Amino acid sequence: MLFEQVTVVGVGLIGGSVGLAVRARKLAARVIGVDRDPVILARAVELGAIDSFTTDLVAGVEAADLVVVCTPVDRIAEVILTAAQHVRSGTIFTDTGSTKENIVTAVAGALPKGVAFVPAHPLAGREKNGVEHARANLFENRLTITIQSDDEMDPAIVERVEKFWSALGSPVIRMYPYDHDCILAGTSHLPHVVASALAAVTPVEWLKYTAGGFRDTTRIASSDPAIWAAIFLDNKDSILATVRQFADRIELLRRLLAAGDAAGLVLWLSEGKQVRDALGS
Amino acid sequence: MLFEQVTVVGVGLIGGSVGLAVRARKLAARVIGVDRDPVILARAVELGAIDSFTTDLVAGVEAADLVVVCTPVDRIAEVILTAAQHVRSGTIFTDTGSTKENIVTAVAGALPKGVAFVPAHPLAGREKNGVEHARANLFENRLTITIQSDDEMDPAIVERVEKFWSALGSPVIRMYPYDHDCILAGTSHLPHVVASALAAVTPVEWLKYTAGGFRDTTRIASSDPAIWAAIFLDNKDSILATVRQFADRIELLRRLLAAGDAAGLVLWLSEGKQVRDALGS
Repeated sequence: MLFEQVTVVGVGLIGGSVGLAVRARKLAARVIGVDRDPVILARAVELGAIDSFTTDLVAGVEAADLVVVCTPVDRIAEVILTAAQHVRSGTIFTDTGSTKENIVTAVAGALPKGVAFVPAHPLAGREKNGVEHARANLFENRLTITIQSDDEMDPAIVERVEKFWSALGSPVIRMYPYDHDCILAGTSHLPHVVASALAAVTPVEWLKYTAGGFRDTTRIASSDPAIWAAIFLDNKDSILATVRQFADRIELLRRLLAAGDAAGLVLWLSEGKQVRDALGS
Repeated sequence: MLFEQVTVVGVGLIGGSVGLAVRARKLAARVIGVDRDPVILARAVELGAIDSFTTDLVAGVEAADLVVVCTPVDRIAEVILTAAQHVRSGTIFTDTGSTKENIVTAVAGALPKGVAFVPAHPLAGREKNGVEHARANLFENRLTITIQSDDEMDPAIVERVEKFWSALGSPVIRMYPYDHDCILAGTSHLPHVVASALAAVTPVEWLKYTAGGFRDTTRIASSDPAIWAAIFLDNKDSILATVRQFADRIELLRRLLAAGDAAGLVLWLSEGKQVRDALGS
């Protein structure tokens, strides 16, 4: 057992999966869920994602050893800063946000002595939302990025959080926040932009003429708009840069095609294939 | 049995799957494969995709009742026009090309009397190429679009070809060539553009930081560049139009994001989600 009490704040797909995994792997004596909606929390108990719950953040964290903040990214810093005033010394915070730099900046230097925050981002998710879709194995073999946010932090604390994510089945790699946000803009946020744009320009009456290619390429367009709008805004500069690169690449295709440049089109397609083949199927 | 002899020209993923399906469902007494490479053809016999083979198009089609042309789109019309000079009266051609209008135009009025061409496009495929990846069930529950290319054609011939595709497990719908190319530009060709562009702008060293979203969104970027360059060129005008719409949609995202317009971003994402949710998972 790694912790006596783990509190999960935000019991949706990710938070619910954290709870399920912690309980399945017996990493804590109890998992407390905190969310705004008691109906969702009661359902999370039924599903075995949490042992008990409260809608009161302070009550939920005051006896916690580890607090895992799984809210949308625009609420993470606020939850941590509020909760940190009410936890015991020694309590550790971690999170699951898809952006890191703004959160790290907002929390930096603002925590009471004895309270630590080790940001994390498990690269796991589904296009389905809500605790109903949570799975105990969501993090298995999915990378978790942890953040080295403060050079003065006790290394043992960072290692303890990394051990937690490892114990959920996730290989862990440590990064700086800026690097995380820059890379994830390309590998995660841009795909959401692209999938959504592709779906949006498709007339609904054409959907019956789609095959597996369209289905796969647009799958994540079903993700929650509010959650993703918050991520886009939180990582605005990096996403704008990567969207620009992508738009330039599309413009190159348009020019090659308009010119009827067969060799250029083959090369253009080959460059994409080379990257995708390197990923494996 | 629908035909005595079916000849498949181009024994790759699609042609091989046609052969496997015809043989599995006993729709012909024999399936002859025609391709340029005898090694591939011999492998197709081993895999059970064809009964026998020849690298000589004329020899392969002269006793055929149905010829299924599964070459890249830029060779389909040429194959049909050449082969048509050597088939028996009553032989029917069909194809599996992803574009239709140019092929229909090239073949129209150029076939010998007694020889018919009923264009088809089974909306089935994989990002893997070659007969090794062929599957007998590739067409099951995948729509096949047939083309009404000539108002004077005997309806019984069109129906016979539609019965063939139905017998491979495919629901069939009939369309005009222009409509086909316009719709498929959006539902199939544009996704290939988008997936390739997304993969191409991603540094290979970032691939380890990707998750299921990137994987799905880029999957078809692994498709064969030569095959897809030919499709792009063959459906140039429709693809340029749909690429333009897509680029405008991306530009709208860029403006909303640059302006920090949270409500606009939620709406933008919701419009994509609405279309994708209508498709189902």
